[in-house]
Amino acid sequence: MSNVTFLGGGSFGTALGILLANKGNKVSVYDREKNTVNDININRRNDRYIKDLHIPENVTAYINLDEAIENTEFIVLAVPSHAIRVVAKSLKNKIKKDVIIISIAKGIEEGSNLRLSQVIEEELPNNKVVILSGPSHAEEVAFDIPTTVVVASHHLDAAKKVQDLFISINFRVYTNEDLIGVEIGGAVKNIIALAAGVCDGIGYGDNSKAALMTRGMAEIVRIGVKLGGKAETFLGLTGMGDLIVTCTSLHSRNRKAGYLIGTGKTTDEAIKEVGMVVEGIKACRSFYELKEKLNIEMPITDVLYKILFEEKNPKDAVIDLMERERKSEIY
Amino acid sequence: MSNVTFLGGGSFGTALGILLANKGNKVSVYDREKNTVNDININRRNDRYIKDLHIPENVTAYINLDEAIENTEFIVLAVPSHAIRVVAKSLKNKIKKDVIIISIAKGIEEGSNLRLSQVIEEELPNNKVVILSGPSHAEEVAFDIPTTVVVASHHLDAAKKVQDLFISINFRVYTNEDLIGVEIGGAVKNIIALAAGVCDGIGYGDNSKAALMTRGMAEIVRIGVKLGGKAETFLGLTGMGDLIVTCTSLHSRNRKAGYLIGTGKTTDEAIKEVGMVVEGIKACRSFYELKEKLNIEMPITDVLYKILFEEKNPKDAVIDLMERERKSEIY
Repeated sequence: MSNVTFLGGGSFGTALGILLANKGNKVSVYDREKNTVNDININRRNDRYIKDLHIPENVTAYINLDEAIENTEFIVLAVPSHAIRVVAKSLKNKIKKDVIIISIAKGIEEGSNLRLSQVIEEELPNNKVVILSGPSHAEEVAFDIPTTVVVASHHLDAAKKVQDLFISINFRVYTNEDLIGVEIGGAVKNIIALAAGVCDGIGYGDNSKAALMTRGMAEIVRIGVKLGGKAETFLGLTGMGDLIVTCTSLHSRNRKAGYLIGTGKTTDEAIKEVGMVVEGIKACRSFYELKEKLNIEMPITDVLYKILFEEKNPKDAVIDLMERERKSEIY
Repeated sequence: MSNVTFLGGGSFGTALGILLANKGNKVSVYDREKNTVNDININRRNDRYIKDLHIPENVTAYINLDEAIENTEFIVLAVPSHAIRVVAKSLKNKIKKDVIIISIAKGIEEGSNLRLSQVIEEELPNNKVVILSGPSHAEEVAFDIPTTVVVASHHLDAAKKVQDLFISINFRVYTNEDLIGVEIGGAVKNIIALAAGVCDGIGYGDNSKAALMTRGMAEIVRIGVKLGGKAETFLGLTGMGDLIVTCTSLHSRNRKAGYLIGTGKTTDEAIKEVGMVVEGIKACRSFYELKEKLNIEMPITDVLYKILFEEKNPKDAVIDLMERERKSEIY
């Protein structure tokens, strides 16, 4: 059994923390919010993020980082992509080099356009980094509904340790050596999910959304392969699998934000109503920059960028997308 | 403007007939059911298949085949896969060789395991055959909700004529030269949709279903490439696109049949409750035979076959599937 620390007491971190605690590990959760810490320690719940949970006794929440990471073997960065650098930096000179860092966020760093594993490696160059990704809504993991995920790392030994740490009957963990592909797939699918939400919000149907997702998949493969990922990774759990779940599930924040925008709300209103971080909005800005720089065709990202940041009318934008000249179906 | 005849007044045929009539074509519908013919001609509706439709005046239904095909230029075989041969045979020596035959069914012929275009070519060797496929629920096409489909043929000129015939603002038609890939993708996705429905019926969540669909996609590619299709076709509208819509839409009969089986109904009870042909059940038997003969790994088809035809308990079967040894995520 291991000591595992989660930095951030949000929904996915909490769900994974419960899973590890139920396997007998000692789980620590660091959170800046006193209410979250108290809810976990006193009420054995985390109602702000997932209702009706029971959090086992071997999960302890801390408001103090140093206490939370004492004697830990694995640290899970359970924060949104924009907070990864500052949280990784906060661990500098505080952890031994055999502590494995696990990231569960999906996105790339705005400005630098670095993958999150690169950001963590910049801040903590002596620690091995493992990315955990795949179709895994927290609300389902928390209630032990069968889920499959992938762990990826430059260090196969570390990935295998993380696989052993998390694997259970209803949480299947596969290793994948294509770290780039896993990270890029996870980031870009949020852009497509936002666009799928816009489609839903406009009132389009399942036929339209399936077409958009199919063309979105082509977009993920094009940019992903250009950035160094392997095509087969994008067709796996962290690409297609995660794309499907994010575009179709009612749990998805990205889809929901897109839906609200499709019904006529502004980007800011949608973010406010969702009430949690919408990774796809940031990813859209980053990948718009990348596709321009690398000269990659990403028409859905293009259209979404115009909707999100240039106040283009969603309905007009989607019609433009449907009308694009394309006589022969070439992937 | 053209004369177009639909053989079969079911839901997809009716939806496409309305689309062509609204473009100004003269549309004839042949159906064996007097009630359907009368409903179309007298009430301008087809309530048995799609409620609340208005059928334009330039659609005429016939109970007599010879009248329905008089002076026709295109014949759409709008019948389930098991009826394709008998309907094609009924046209023998009755049509000129420049009449283009369009098939909109998704499946392969039981027993012979031939693709439907092969069946039609056997019966009508002088006519060009075009397959129309893609994510296109009839209920949405009928109400002009944006939809994209693919036409495929050995004869590009015929495919282009069919593209021109159907294309409209909300019905985008692409050509694809990979006839085998288009047909196999359309047939196998119904097997995966049935399995996805079983998952839903058991009470599994979006995470599980996304994983199943991802692994189902791998199965489609494996058998499809072996049978001579191109991998990129399976990643397009007629593969991935149609897989998504069939697995996630409430309109899907295959998903619904699977759902009922997942809740404990027998195969026969499920077929009866759906009330229309469930193509995936027949496809499962055919592709089970093919995969055995060709020695292709298709674990989802395997498990579904045991549920459908060997009375294996659905929950046990799905657990077996989840538990399969697979440590590294290889596509």
